[in-house]
This record gives sequence, C-alpha cells and structure tokens, in this order.
Amino acid sequence: MDPVKVIEIKKSVFADNDKDADELRRELKKRGVFLLNLMSSPGSGKTTTLIRTINLIKDKIRVAVMEADIDSDVDAVKIREATGIPSIQLHTGGMCHLDAEMTRQGLDNVDLGGADLVILENVGNLVCPAEFDTGAVRNAMILSVPEGDDKPLKYPLMFSICDLVLVNKIDVLPWFDFDLEKCKEYVRMRNPKARVLPVCAKTGEGLDAFAQWLLDEVREWKR
Amino acid sequence: MDPVKVIEIKKSVFADNDKDADELRRELKKRGVFLLNLMSSPGSGKTTTLIRTINLIKDKIRVAVMEADIDSDVDAVKIREATGIPSIQLHTGGMCHLDAEMTRQGLDNVDLGGADLVILENVGNLVCPAEFDTGAVRNAMILSVPEGDDKPLKYPLMFSICDLVLVNKIDVLPWFDFDLEKCKEYVRMRNPKARVLPVCAKTGEGLDAFAQWLLDEVREWKR
Repeated sequence: MDPVKVIEIKKSVFADNDKDADELRRELKKRGVFLLNLMSSPGSGKTTTLIRTINLIKDKIRVAVMEADIDSDVDAVKIREATGIPSIQLHTGGMCHLDAEMTRQGLDNVDLGGADLVILENVGNLVCPAEFDTGAVRNAMILSVPEGDDKPLKYPLMFSICDLVLVNKIDVLPWFDFDLEKCKEYVRMRNPKARVLPVCAKTGEGLDAFAQWLLDEVREWKR
Repeated sequence: MDPVKVIEIKKSVFADNDKDADELRRELKKRGVFLLNLMSSPGSGKTTTLIRTINLIKDKIRVAVMEADIDSDVDAVKIREATGIPSIQLHTGGMCHLDAEMTRQGLDNVDLGGADLVILENVGNLVCPAEFDTGAVRNAMILSVPEGDDKPLKYPLMFSICDLVLVNKIDVLPWFDFDLEKCKEYVRMRNPKARVLPVCAKTGEGLDAFAQWLLDEVREWKR
C-alpha cells in the first residue's frame, strides 16, 4: 500500500472564518458532498468509532476521512487499513483546531473519489475546535464515560454547537460514576436540539444508530 | 461558608510571555511560594487527585489552589469543601490556556495565607496549555488509563514539558487496552527526565508517592 498522504496545514490568513465556512458549505452542497466535523477530548475513541461505523455504511455510500493531528499519522493509517476507504492525515503543526480555510486545504488534497460523505476528525480538544466553524454540514462529538457526566457544564460551547453527542465506552459504565440521564440533561441545557446516542465503539453497541443518522443526513443533504 | 471567589481572567496584553513567566518565578522564589501547573485532558481526574493528595500534605505544608475553567465554579467549591484549604476559581472566558500574566491575575486574588504550595489546575486541554509557560516552578500532568497509552505520540509538546506524569485510574486497567510499560517508553521518548507515577485517585493508590514528590519539591524550592 502507498504511504498515507500527510498534508502540512498552514495557518489561515483569512480574517472572516464564518464567511469562509459558509462559502465552503455552499460549494459542498453544489458538489453533493456531506462534511461531518467530529470532535472530542484526547482518547475518547474517535478513531475506533469511525472504523466500526464506516464499515457499516461503506457499501451504501462513498466515504473518505481526513484525520487532523498535531503530529503522527497513526490514525489515518489505522482508518485506511481497517476500512479500505481513502484517508489522509492533516498535520496542524501544533495548532489546536481547524478552521474553514485549513479544512479546505485538506479537501483540496483528499482524493474524494466522488465521496458522498467526508469525515473530518478534528484535533482532540474540547475547547478550541468549538470556536471555529470548519464549513462542515454537521458537528458531532464524542464524550466517553470515563471523562464524567459533568463535561457539558465545563465545556459549554462545544456541547452547544454539536448536533449529535455520542456517549462512548458505555461498556465500562459499571466501573465509573457516570449518570447517563444526568448527562443527557446537561447536554439539553446547552443544546435542546442535540441528539444523544450511547455507544460502545469496542463492541459495536449503538453504532447502527450512528450509521443510520449519517445515512439519513447524507441523503437529506444530497436532495 | 462564603461563596468561592471567582476571578474573570482578562486576556494578556504582554507580548513576551517567556520573560513574564521567568519574572513571576523569580518573585515566587523570593516569597518562598512553589507553584505547580497541573494539566490534563478533560475528565482525567485532576480535581479528585488534588483533593486526596492535598489531604495527605495539608498538615505538613500550607496549600492553596487556583482552578481554571472556561465556566462554572464546581471544582473550586469541591476542593474547598473536601480539604478546607483556600481555593479560588479562575474563569478564562472561553480561552483555552493560561499564560504567565493570567496566572499572575489569579495569584493577586488568592489569599495565599502564607502558602508554601499553590497548585494551578489548568484548563482541561492537552494542546494549548503546553505552549504557554505559566511561571510555575514545575509542570505536571495527568494521563488517565481510558485515554490510551499512545497519547505521548499524539501530544508531544505536552509530554516534553512535564516533569511528572501521573497515570491515573489504574483501577480500570483490566478493562482497557492500556500497556503501562509502553506508555512509560513513549513518555521517555518525549522527555527522558520525566517521572511517571501510576495512581488511582478514587482509591488513593500511589498518591503517597505524588504527595512525597510535592513535599520534596517544595522543600528544595524554599531552601
């Protein structure tokens, strides 16, 4: 297999990120490409969740992945090996988030191969990525059980901008003080419209619901 | 009890953070105050670790805590209720890190009460806090088992600047694919001098070693 493509992302020079993000969304709409911005803390299970979910939908729609990381290309390699779909690595050079222009630099370098769905795995960080519209059609995030049910109280912006919250690692609920109902209530405080899906990327539990959400959203976007 | 003091931190206007940080360290040395900058991902167990460790040392040295958070004052309240030591909350107003000037704003507002040790609990984030010297004497971080043993590969700067890495939640090692030896090796790759201490804040396991490290460091600093 060829080595995974690694793009060194350059800092944006555009002043108006919101405008640039809207412009990118319009282009994606025209091309019929649905872009999902997936965010989380470090170690919440983004890559494992993606691998299992992509394998559930890759025969139904064409999927590509852009993995953003400060360094290393382990995630892009993992994704490609485990799913066979096109996957590139974006190096942010120490930057803590992606904005619309940086996302565009990634999209210009990924062989979309007529992709219906491009998933951007943002830098593991609950703070900065929430502040920058990437141009994605939808924002989703993963909160894992070991992080605690109080995270929507502490990272309000992140939860308020996400359309979907996956609560991952529910297999370890018995060993952690994590109240799923309380967590849902906190998420609703920040964003009454956000959908919360409990999942376990390790066993696959709940990922059919995430896969269905993706399929529905992509179909809606391509209408 | 009085309500916990909440300080709204203002963005720094100082251009040279490194210079400001060195200046702050010199002042702290003169006053005999040891400042520890404690960093981690969201939900790694910083507050619980602090509570149990402070209770091990508070009869030997005088401790105060500054809790940095984007919003909410739950951590400062928890620390004060569980330990009885002075504790204030710093609101960063959405900012993802603290620098030396912001740390100084906090120190100016905490009643140090002749503190020997001030612990700054930084914003939960493995990226940005690593880029800004807070003026602390030592940097420490917590990596929790559920986050995965590969984090030193993905967040190189954070691990390279930390003098101490606490590996927390070792009680759940049986339920996660986390190789402690591999993790130590990765930490050493980033920083050969860093000390790695496996702990469990929930049960207290290993925290006596963290407490002893703090006592030794404070004594050394006050010489």
